[in-house]
Order: sequence, then C-alpha cells, then structure tokens
Amino acid sequence: MFIAHVFLHIKPECIDAFIQATENNASNSRLEAGIARFDFIQQQDDPSRFVLVEVYQSEDDVGRHKETEHYATWRDAVHDMMAEPRYSIKFNNISPDGSGW
Amino acid sequence: MFIAHVFLHIKPECIDAFIQATENNASNSRLEAGIARFDFIQQQDDPSRFVLVEVYQSEDDVGRHKETEHYATWRDAVHDMMAEPRYSIKFNNISPDGSGW
Repeated sequence: MFIAHVFLHIKPECIDAFIQATENNASNSRLEAGIARFDFIQQQDDPSRFVLVEVYQSEDDVGRHKETEHYATWRDAVHDMMAEPRYSIKFNNISPDGSGW
Repeated sequence: MFIAHVFLHIKPECIDAFIQATENNASNSRLEAGIARFDFIQQQDDPSRFVLVEVYQSEDDVGRHKETEHYATWRDAVHDMMAEPRYSIKFNNISPDGSGW
C-alpha cells in the first residue's frame, strides 16, 4: 500500500468550514477504487491541527485521486483556510498486508 | 475513537529486530477487544522511522493494552533499539465514525 499522512494546520476561524469541506472530500474519496482508507482525524491538544490518513492501493492511485472533482473542489475550498502550508509524509505498510485495510 | 500515532526512530542496525518485535506486538494487539486498528508503517524516505497507528475504542483501552504481556514484551525488547525517545500524538476521529475502523 502507498500511505500518505497529510498534516493540516487551519486558521481558528476556519475550522468549522474546513471540517465540512474535508468531510465531503473524505466521503467521496472512500468511494474511489484505489483508496482503501481515507481517515480524517483532529489533534486532541490542538483542535486547529488535523491529519488525513490516506491509504492507496498503489502510488498511481494518488494521481487518479487528484484528478477527481471532489479533490479539486476541496483543494480550492480550503486554499485560504491554512494557517501554514500543508505537507505530507509517505509510508509503506509493514502490517497489515494489502488485505487488511 | 481514541487514536494515537506513535513515532519511532530506530538505530539502523536494529531495524530488522525492531520490525520482528513490533510485528509480534501488532498482531497480538489486533486481537484485543478495545483495539480497532493497529497499523505498522515505515517512512519511505527514511526507513529508520516508523509509525504505529493505534485506534482504540476508548482511552480506557490504552491502559488495558499496556497491561498485556505482548506490550510488555515489546516495550522491553525495543528499549535499546531507539535512536531517540519515541513520542505520540493523540487524535479524535472526525470520520469515519466508530463503525468505520
């Protein structure tokens, strides 16, 4: 699996709108054939920080995700909500194996 | 859900042993009633860095996990393998909800 953790720091006044926009992206992304998980989580000690845990069948599926309408809608909607630029860290799964996501 | 991302930086010469010890802990942890996911992933651009993505039904289940024999075995086995102290960041799920893990 190709796994990306996307770290997002959001302006406090934008948190509610960010959650709404990201929920829409997440629920649609979970319907993509190449996406095994698309988890949206909020940091406990700083509710302005979020992580998207994106688990793809392969790295090629990242490109397909970025061509979707829901991704483009999300990208544009959250553009001005960032307190700082978002970044991601890429991982490979050790376990579970490909069937466990 | 109560979610912990545990960040581990391992001495290069210990990576194989660390993976073996952590696989044992992960596979047993997934059998715990209070654990929904226990994913073990390796950073692509630095194979000495790992994350455990631990998803608990509740924060109380973290305490129960730390009382298990497999946790104690792992904790002791990896103690001297750390290149620096491990740390964790705690999250709450926004989505999916509790049934989606």
